[in-house]
Amino acid sequence: MAVAEFATPSRYNYSSLVNYSSKRSYVSTSLYKKRLIACTPLPSTQHARICCSATREVQAPVAVDTAELKKQAECYGVFCLTYDLKAEEDTRSWKKLIKIAVSGAAGMISNHLLFKLASGEVFGPDQPVSLKLLGSERSIQALEGVAMELEDSLFPLLREVIIGIDPYEVFQDVEWALLIGAKPRGPGMERADLLDINGQIFAEQGKALNAVASRNVKVVVVGNPCNTNALICMKNAPNIPPKNFHALTRLDENRAKCQLALKAGVFYDKVSNVTIWGNHSTTQVPDFLNSKINGFPVTEIIKDRKWLEEEFTEKVQKRGGVLIQKWGRSSAASTSVSIVDAIRSLIIPTPKGDWFSSGVYTTGNPYGIAEDIVFSMPCRSKGDGDYELVKDVMIDDFLWNRIKKSEAELLAEKRCVAHLTGEGIAVCDLPGDTMLPGEM
Amino acid sequence: MAVAEFATPSRYNYSSLVNYSSKRSYVSTSLYKKRLIACTPLPSTQHARICCSATREVQAPVAVDTAELKKQAECYGVFCLTYDLKAEEDTRSWKKLIKIAVSGAAGMISNHLLFKLASGEVFGPDQPVSLKLLGSERSIQALEGVAMELEDSLFPLLREVIIGIDPYEVFQDVEWALLIGAKPRGPGMERADLLDINGQIFAEQGKALNAVASRNVKVVVVGNPCNTNALICMKNAPNIPPKNFHALTRLDENRAKCQLALKAGVFYDKVSNVTIWGNHSTTQVPDFLNSKINGFPVTEIIKDRKWLEEEFTEKVQKRGGVLIQKWGRSSAASTSVSIVDAIRSLIIPTPKGDWFSSGVYTTGNPYGIAEDIVFSMPCRSKGDGDYELVKDVMIDDFLWNRIKKSEAELLAEKRCVAHLTGEGIAVCDLPGDTMLPGEM
Repeated sequence: MAVAEFATPSRYNYSSLVNYSSKRSYVSTSLYKKRLIACTPLPSTQHARICCSATREVQAPVAVDTAELKKQAECYGVFCLTYDLKAEEDTRSWKKLIKIAVSGAAGMISNHLLFKLASGEVFGPDQPVSLKLLGSERSIQALEGVAMELEDSLFPLLREVIIGIDPYEVFQDVEWALLIGAKPRGPGMERADLLDINGQIFAEQGKALNAVASRNVKVVVVGNPCNTNALICMKNAPNIPPKNFHALTRLDENRAKCQLALKAGVFYDKVSNVTIWGNHSTTQVPDFLNSKINGFPVTEIIKDRKWLEEEFTEKVQKRGGVLIQKWGRSSAASTSVSIVDAIRSLIIPTPKGDWFSSGVYTTGNPYGIAEDIVFSMPCRSKGDGDYELVKDVMIDDFLWNRIKKSEAELLAEKRCVAHLTGEGIAVCDLPGDTMLPGEM
Repeated sequence: MAVAEFATPSRYNYSSLVNYSSKRSYVSTSLYKKRLIACTPLPSTQHARICCSATREVQAPVAVDTAELKKQAECYGVFCLTYDLKAEEDTRSWKKLIKIAVSGAAGMISNHLLFKLASGEVFGPDQPVSLKLLGSERSIQALEGVAMELEDSLFPLLREVIIGIDPYEVFQDVEWALLIGAKPRGPGMERADLLDINGQIFAEQGKALNAVASRNVKVVVVGNPCNTNALICMKNAPNIPPKNFHALTRLDENRAKCQLALKAGVFYDKVSNVTIWGNHSTTQVPDFLNSKINGFPVTEIIKDRKWLEEEFTEKVQKRGGVLIQKWGRSSAASTSVSIVDAIRSLIIPTPKGDWFSSGVYTTGNPYGIAEDIVFSMPCRSKGDGDYELVKDVMIDDFLWNRIKKSEAELLAEKRCVAHLTGEGIAVCDLPGDTMLPGEM
């Protein structure tokens, strides 16, 4: 056996990318730099409305042909090695390698999530994984640090780690894209500004997915404002089924289950059928009407209607803020657990009679919610990566009125990012602040 | 079904602690506050030696009888509920609840580890777990935050979470104690000071384990200097078998395997039989002589002897420092993976012909290493929580000389903490600094 030199991260033998320079490829960032938004915020009271309009319409989806890519995604260290999984007894029965992209890969949520993906906890003990870490120029060193820790963890199933800053490189052939990275809200930044800044990131990532990802890639958007980011991403990826895009509301669902359990004095495994409706914001609607405890309607178990109508929602929404107060950091660990839950809900059949929440595309929904937005609704899956909306849910006036408020917010967000979805000129008319406490 | 009030953390129905006030209990902290160390450091060159001696001998192990405990460990939120696992179909076949204590529970390593323990990844899918989180007064709020995130994660196997700051409470009946918490080294602090400060923590925790833990508790010490902390802990727990104490060198082993794989150009799953000998410090000895790649001696695969003798060890030891440079934080994620590896090595039979490294008690060792210290050596386990030392290893002069250096260091550390192990007056005569880069 030959003695190899110490492998460095610059070694590059990721087979599917070898012929890269001969491929057509797409970049989009430059277009957005020219866009100007004339924005005249009104005095900043809680219910002040800000009105912005883009002075220049930017079409999207739009694809720019470039001869060369700016920077190649790099395999890292020991993961640059090639081998044949089918050649060895231990790995012969394994499934085909699955490629998973994670953006914001140097952040704290990813720091939990990547190790779960690598350990086999998410996709199972016979599923080798390739992790493709997307970062920014600023975080590229940190990405290397993460890759080093993945090396040192010796996960047998982790067979490729690739780091990079260009989504057109990193998203190549991925079957899952977990989009966690987003710009945090800076001091004095209006929600419209945040929608615009992060929207541009997700527009670019949508284009990149459209250009290079697997044709059936599943996309889970975690970076906030996640519903509208997911919509932007989807609109910029017209060749990927809209059904494949999800905005994460699973942490809200998990928190809602825990609060119902606490109130009822039962363990959380007794709580089922909890829907989060709407936007991942303070307009979200944790649904107690259809929720069950030990198979009985929650409303039969918890008689305190005032608590259900008021405190319950508040407890779910304020959880992140309380956590930051206690722990000093935002909830990276439980967020990453909920991302795992969201993925596993799509690859494992949903237990009979139950469902899960996900922010998904509303077109064709059976509830009468406005079409063409991303709205959290109750879903079931056969475990094939796909889902269907649950039809047999009750919606009373109380629930419907709240759903409509969240819908109105998402329609307003959509108008505010029209320049990023290819639907014309952006008009922002948003409530002052509906970010969830504890989120940036 | 009755409607319970919203459960608060102060609810207290942890059944095994109900009769608490009637039990004898022990506290020890006050004794140590009176100890003074006269310490005259020599000029701080790299090989300067510092000499310290304790002016007052403090006997240990020592137990102080108290009528009342200062503060009760508290169950947290939803985990305060009682239920009967045997009464339900889903949980009837589960094993008996296992109680696991984690110190430094509000820190970053624990933030990864606790969620692994709770998910079933460590002890398996039919093993319900109780997590008992030990923190400090300063971190009690953060502990609540961690407990909240554990609640929100809805792990079915996680059946109890208890938080507290008194080891006599938190260690009650635990079968595993994962001792991660330790004071970091402050500016200008000598290694002798660190040994003393952390030694006091581990002396107290040893006494607490001795008083209240399961008689067969397995203790894994991660807080540095971990070998000597483990020795101190063990000496203060005379009723627990010395074999049950481990100092974590598994991250070093994992890193060594990865470096050998990188050098040989093979995937890390091909590397086996890697021992870390000695102290978890810069005197540690990653053993290439007995290591194998694809079943062949490493020395037959990697012919570059200079690399093996010099760079290999350096790469393993400097890994933590490089990681901090890249990532800006110390390696919490991979450390927690290595703790999981260490635990699973004791509860799963070691693959035939292979072994793992752990810092264990030397008395009775077959290698001729000085007795009565905690030294990392090659171990095998039948998967029953116990281990035996591997006999058939080669030790040549090169290896032996390096082992002796690490042994000398540990003997010096032992003399420096004699006041904490019940062996008389401490005399510190330590090399200037052998902390691993990237560790505090």
